[in-house]
Amino acid sequence: MAKILTAQTQYFTFDKLVLESKQELKNVTVAYETYGNLNAAKTNAILIAHAFSGDAHAAGFHAGDDKPGWWDSMIGSAKAFDTDKYFVICSNVLGGCAGSTGPSSINPDTNKPYALDFPVITVADMVSAQKKLIDFLGIKKLLSVAGGSMGGMQVLQWAVAYPESLYSVIPIATTMKHSPQQIAFNEVARQSIMADVEWNKGDYYGAKHQPYRGLAVARMIGHITYMSDKSMEEKFSRNRKTASNSSGADFAADFEVEGYLQYRGDSFTKRFDANSYLYITKAMDLFDVSGYKHVAKNKDLKFLVISFASDWLYPSYQSENTVKQLKLKGYNTTYIEIKSTYGHDAFLLEVEGETKLIKHFLNKVSKEI
Amino acid sequence: MAKILTAQTQYFTFDKLVLESKQELKNVTVAYETYGNLNAAKTNAILIAHAFSGDAHAAGFHAGDDKPGWWDSMIGSAKAFDTDKYFVICSNVLGGCAGSTGPSSINPDTNKPYALDFPVITVADMVSAQKKLIDFLGIKKLLSVAGGSMGGMQVLQWAVAYPESLYSVIPIATTMKHSPQQIAFNEVARQSIMADVEWNKGDYYGAKHQPYRGLAVARMIGHITYMSDKSMEEKFSRNRKTASNSSGADFAADFEVEGYLQYRGDSFTKRFDANSYLYITKAMDLFDVSGYKHVAKNKDLKFLVISFASDWLYPSYQSENTVKQLKLKGYNTTYIEIKSTYGHDAFLLEVEGETKLIKHFLNKVSKEI
Repeated sequence: MAKILTAQTQYFTFDKLVLESKQELKNVTVAYETYGNLNAAKTNAILIAHAFSGDAHAAGFHAGDDKPGWWDSMIGSAKAFDTDKYFVICSNVLGGCAGSTGPSSINPDTNKPYALDFPVITVADMVSAQKKLIDFLGIKKLLSVAGGSMGGMQVLQWAVAYPESLYSVIPIATTMKHSPQQIAFNEVARQSIMADVEWNKGDYYGAKHQPYRGLAVARMIGHITYMSDKSMEEKFSRNRKTASNSSGADFAADFEVEGYLQYRGDSFTKRFDANSYLYITKAMDLFDVSGYKHVAKNKDLKFLVISFASDWLYPSYQSENTVKQLKLKGYNTTYIEIKSTYGHDAFLLEVEGETKLIKHFLNKVSKEI
Repeated sequence: MAKILTAQTQYFTFDKLVLESKQELKNVTVAYETYGNLNAAKTNAILIAHAFSGDAHAAGFHAGDDKPGWWDSMIGSAKAFDTDKYFVICSNVLGGCAGSTGPSSINPDTNKPYALDFPVITVADMVSAQKKLIDFLGIKKLLSVAGGSMGGMQVLQWAVAYPESLYSVIPIATTMKHSPQQIAFNEVARQSIMADVEWNKGDYYGAKHQPYRGLAVARMIGHITYMSDKSMEEKFSRNRKTASNSSGADFAADFEVEGYLQYRGDSFTKRFDANSYLYITKAMDLFDVSGYKHVAKNKDLKFLVISFASDWLYPSYQSENTVKQLKLKGYNTTYIEIKSTYGHDAFLLEVEGETKLIKHFLNKVSKEI
């Protein structure tokens, strides 16, 4: 039987981070977890970068919890990121709300939460903070950085910013830059939050009412884009929530899909900060490494690029564009489109396909060190 | 030079309409316009059914306006619906807010606007009201009923409910029933409206503040689904609204696509009623003629079914399912998927392709009467 991982969030703090905007962020905290053991040569470390709403708790169980971390299916003994072999690290992104410094953190200049005084941050800033953590852990070169969706953007940013600190990278279901459609979905979500009077220009911390309604609608939009037309059909079809076929004019949920979205929207408000939603989606929209050159510093860097056939939020053509650029620059690049009906959620659900690819890839990279 | 149509909205009223729910709606008004002339035999009448946010003003210019009706490119002298040959009618749907009875109308029982006391209405109810108008105009049998999107649902409903009153129908970019993804987009839009405190459980008529912010976000979601990934790329790419590359933390529009959506959302609030949004989208979601039998009453009824290659809101497979059912039942059915990059908006924009198909089809139908 596979060992069950117990997990605990740790906190790394440092004095300041100079942001891409040249602004300085003071007293920065990075929440992180690690699984497995770092070898003596410190060559078996893998950084996992989480997606938009993820956190540092990628695997294992926190004491008392009955649900494991968000990528537990992929991280653990004998799993894709095999903790018997590798030392796996995951940290909450800068701008987040799960332990790392973000707009809900206390501004040392005012002793109040930053709210909109928090500076605009970028994916490059998220990665700078991760680099400081990796340095702190004494790791000179990561065996790999892997992640899906916004996690994949961080992966690509690592390859651009710190190619000499990497043996390999695994960008999954991601893009070098958001298309206008991807920006549009984020913008509508932001508008939904900012339309909530309780948002109060970002100044709602400690207030009696919170911008939960706007945040819930934003999350509902997200969930539509994470599934595919087909996976929604398979999961919900036109099934009704109640036996009744005649809907009242109260506009409560008639269909199962409506109940599902409402549930996901509501539960999201219990764990996510509305301002973090604004800052992190903006970082995604501003991200653009489609013209980068720096990655040429390490021609031995290996890429495993994965996309999913039914993912219409980060469609395969975006991964194909990444692969085209990498191949043009002469990189060792493997690209696989996994057949799936799960849509963008596939990067969390297609465990078998991903495990096979990633295990093999990491084995090969490890041997060639 | 083609003649320029002048148009004027007219109002047809009747005492009551028995709804699908068996409820009675009293003092019903149907706003409508007509273009061209009814022939002596009354066999050249075509009903145009509008999409979700349309109105009776389909073609021509209202006195003083510099913009014509919403399908003016298709209706007029020598156009697809040639007003030199045909008598074209368009009416605002029941539940709407452009002259026909809807939730913003005065409830004769209370002398106040209905708001949520307005009964739930269905696409079948919209079509019953249209049938009363057609009867009032003295037309026994329509040469055709045509419409795109929700207009196409009304077209299919006409074929189900009144097959003996039709020579032909033209359902465009539509479906026999909404998929869970289509329901989901409507539900998120409804939730956005209902999340606006100014919505006030539908009771906002005459109030100081209106639920414009929720309504604008709902419309923004809609506009994303009306375009395609490709048409957004062609129209906006990642173009910035301002010269600045560094965005401030005010979360104003950085990208052109954001400015576009905000503009469309805001301007929509000036012409559309939030409660109508709820009632009409609910009618679309409840619509389901996938199991209908009645259409068998008129085996001579001709179908022209049109879909568009890049339409992901009403994807071609839905039109193909309609066609499959019609052919199984032995109907004279022509189906064309028009190549287009415009997404769902194609039914308003692919004028050349539609004109060719529809002109030819109507010619044929007219000759065979």
